[in-house]
Amino acid sequence: MKIDINSDLGEAFGPYVIADDEALMGVITSANVACGYHAGDPVVMDRTIRIAQEHGVDLGAHVGYPDRMGFGRRHMQMDLAELEKHVLYQLGALDGLARPVGHRITHMNPHGALGNLACADRKVAEALVRATADFDPEIALLVLSGTELEAAAKDAGTPTVNLFLADRAYTINGQLAPRSLPGAVIKSEADVYARVTRLLNEGTVLTIDGQVLHVEVQSILVHSDTPHSLAVAHGIKAAIAAAGGEVAALSRQLGAKAG
Amino acid sequence: MKIDINSDLGEAFGPYVIADDEALMGVITSANVACGYHAGDPVVMDRTIRIAQEHGVDLGAHVGYPDRMGFGRRHMQMDLAELEKHVLYQLGALDGLARPVGHRITHMNPHGALGNLACADRKVAEALVRATADFDPEIALLVLSGTELEAAAKDAGTPTVNLFLADRAYTINGQLAPRSLPGAVIKSEADVYARVTRLLNEGTVLTIDGQVLHVEVQSILVHSDTPHSLAVAHGIKAAIAAAGGEVAALSRQLGAKAG
Amino acid sequence: MKIDINSDLGEAFGPYVIADDEALMGVITSANVACGYHAGDPVVMDRTIRIAQEHGVDLGAHVGYPDRMGFGRRHMQMDLAELEKHVLYQLGALDGLARPVGHRITHMNPHGALGNLACADRKVAEALVRATADFDPEIALLVLSGTELEAAAKDAGTPTVNLFLADRAYTINGQLAPRSLPGAVIKSEADVYARVTRLLNEGTVLTIDGQVLHVEVQSILVHSDTPHSLAVAHGIKAAIAAAGGEVAALSRQLGAKAG
Amino acid sequence: MKIDINSDLGEAFGPYVIADDEALMGVITSANVACGYHAGDPVVMDRTIRIAQEHGVDLGAHVGYPDRMGFGRRHMQMDLAELEKHVLYQLGALDGLARPVGHRITHMNPHGALGNLACADRKVAEALVRATADFDPEIALLVLSGTELEAAAKDAGTPTVNLFLADRAYTINGQLAPRSLPGAVIKSEADVYARVTRLLNEGTVLTIDGQVLHVEVQSILVHSDTPHSLAVAHGIKAAIAAAGGEVAALSRQLGAKAG
Repeated sequence: MKIDINSDLGEAFGPYVIADDEALMGVITSANVACGYHAGDPVVMDRTIRIAQEHGVDLGAHVGYPDRMGFGRRHMQMDLAELEKHVLYQLGALDGLARPVGHRITHMNPHGALGNLACADRKVAEALVRATADFDPEIALLVLSGTELEAAAKDAGTPTVNLFLADRAYTINGQLAPRSLPGAVIKSEADVYARVTRLLNEGTVLTIDGQVLHVEVQSILVHSDTPHSLAVAHGIKAAIAAAGGEVAALSRQLGAKAG
Repeated sequence: MKIDINSDLGEAFGPYVIADDEALMGVITSANVACGYHAGDPVVMDRTIRIAQEHGVDLGAHVGYPDRMGFGRRHMQMDLAELEKHVLYQLGALDGLARPVGHRITHMNPHGALGNLACADRKVAEALVRATADFDPEIALLVLSGTELEAAAKDAGTPTVNLFLADRAYTINGQLAPRSLPGAVIKSEADVYARVTRLLNEGTVLTIDGQVLHVEVQSILVHSDTPHSLAVAHGIKAAIAAAGGEVAALSRQLGAKAG
Repeated sequence: MKIDINSDLGEAFGPYVIADDEALMGVITSANVACGYHAGDPVVMDRTIRIAQEHGVDLGAHVGYPDRMGFGRRHMQMDLAELEKHVLYQLGALDGLARPVGHRITHMNPHGALGNLACADRKVAEALVRATADFDPEIALLVLSGTELEAAAKDAGTPTVNLFLADRAYTINGQLAPRSLPGAVIKSEADVYARVTRLLNEGTVLTIDGQVLHVEVQSILVHSDTPHSLAVAHGIKAAIAAAGGEVAALSRQLGAKAG
Repeated sequence: MKIDINSDLGEAFGPYVIADDEALMGVITSANVACGYHAGDPVVMDRTIRIAQEHGVDLGAHVGYPDRMGFGRRHMQMDLAELEKHVLYQLGALDGLARPVGHRITHMNPHGALGNLACADRKVAEALVRATADFDPEIALLVLSGTELEAAAKDAGTPTVNLFLADRAYTINGQLAPRSLPGAVIKSEADVYARVTRLLNEGTVLTIDGQVLHVEVQSILVHSDTPHSLAVAHGIKAAIAAAGGEVAALSRQLGAKAG
């Protein structure tokens, strides 16, 4: 049982730093790298790609709205044709910086408000999938189960990777419980690790109201911008090993599927 | 004798338009397309690439400083390592938008203040050549003869294409005469065409002080942002044909050289 | 009967030009000047303010979303507290450039998507009114009758100026007919002038379905970014004079009201 | 003997934080606040102004180049007329946000590469002074002794405040020793405090080569972006008190001078 650990990195910008990317790269197996829209810049992207390459960490494009001030977290009205061009621009820019390093883009996932919209709006999801496949049909979409983004990718024949958020509660239909609900965010590190253990041992999570939900998972997300992110990454890695799982980058899983 | 006609296009941005790109594409054979730094945006880049593709016009990356307000015309201090990353970002972004259209980047040339610096500063020239070759070693540099950019490209084994500015006077050492000198900018369209005719018939230009200078040329630039740009493009095309030359895109010349 | 003629100007940016601001300034009496968010930059703002000052044209702040690429025409999600700060920033910046010229801000109106939202959403309207009054309680809001923006301004005791769009059809409740309806945009210049004449003679317009609607008007808008904007400005000015009206800047009307 | 303690604050941007502005505001007496060019945004500016107001801290405009990615630390070529407009835009924007808070701008100082240039280039210094005086002639320039900026301000009759950098060595002509020289940056906190003590007791500093230099000082700078900035601020405050000085904001000193 191979499980990837991924994190959103490369979110620095000019003089500004958000996370200790280098430390996290020593633990995770896939990095979703900001492409200069909601965060990141060419110098940051190059540095992040190099560290990923050195650590054997897969490279993903973390695509967002062109809004640094809002960090891509607020919605911007945009027609679908324009959105596709922005996705292609970001994928291309990341690829441009990855080439001299000898790295390549394995996966893509949308950030922030664009990510939320792509989960709920089929047309937006299709635009993201279309742009990604137009750029390179081998790039996988990193998706939450049951979302429009997953459905759009599957319909288009685009490879997908199922993402598990170990620190977020689920509802019985497989969606994330809204943050406004009590218990939607799991704050205890022990509980986070217990959820990983249960998922790997039994293939299930307990939903926010205590029901048993079957969940498929190929990759577990570690939030990079919390004070304890490094400890959490180590804890999740240990939980995977203790459950008999193997921590493996997406590219090794995708390769296995293809083969 | 094959001669390319190139122009700087895709300089629109959001609601703003500079040139009639579509009309010029019907006459020229190579377009240098802004990459969202000094001008252009993903929607403009996509539209420009599509028009180029439809007209069989070669696609070049017109790389500049990240300064829309100054249109890349003013110098920004930048260390060489950072500069390389900005070049890679722009090349990648343009390639990202070209892929779904089925077009590809043939050549690169730096814009405005960056272009001027690359003519005069060997270290900057080398940084541009290195980034371009790192991205794709088949991409040619569009250069003025006798510049540091030409020398850096030749030393690196990067293909070059010699650019001729039909509306600018030269000095005997092959440099452009400074704009501050009387006669440095040739304003008469008839004189511009006569220069093209002489160049093709005799391989020479008369310098600003009336001497005969041998010049190699593979591509002639048409400025896109003047009121008469379309007429000038047609006039240059006619002058080439009248002199027995063949108007041919860079890719056909580079292919011939390679073969 | 005093009527102001206003136009959205200062929408140039760096090398990009949209309208012939200087020519229009010779005809209109109030300019709504972009503040470097959706359009404009400090150099453009300074030039626009100076031309306004020279022509005795009133200065308004045309406040928008921070989105040059979208020209402020697309909605950006933003909480009300943040929106207020962006309004204050723009008002202050325009005032900063007006001071050395000896000009001052008479009025404010929101641009594009922000303007549309402020017409329909009371909370947004209140945020704009609050920020404007916090900056300077004497600044008037330029409003369409019957909108939430007008209501919010009146409730707050902020001066308002009623705007008439001579080239847009109205519904019987005083709203603009949606552009999607046939006849919503009046394209004939003669019809535009006839509407101005009727409004000044009878205080009414014929609605899109032919009913008579009473309308209050203190200022008529001339769109600056159409090919015929200058001719239309002259035509409206002539129609006002022919109807016995006096073309007068907002400041003269506001002064009269105050006195 | 009144001494101000100032710091560069409000350098956050969107999701990014640089310093603990709130903690430092409890110790310092003047804040130089970024105006949305090299750093800061309207939300950050508002928050910083409010905290300053609550703590009785003077408000200064920290004016920079329009280059967030470079944090205003690299030179951008800009003609003097344009530079003045950028200064006015920033002063106005800060004032726009200060008005609703009931705060006002006491002083201005240029940041980063613009600051360095203004120390050395009289024309640039004059442009900054002219723009500041055009905005509000009561605003003081925060200057290093012996610089072109000080000279330009004095010639124009603009009030100045002499800044002392407690952690930087001086040469005998009153300039800062270049950072490349050994000992140019004083890293020992004890040495920093000893320099403050000597300055207040004797009105002198020991230069980098051990000579005694008379220095006038009205304000001491605390760098905000170092790990120990808060401790250093407290240490300098204590050293001032121990030497019998009174820590007092610029406005109290300027008021005293005026009276």
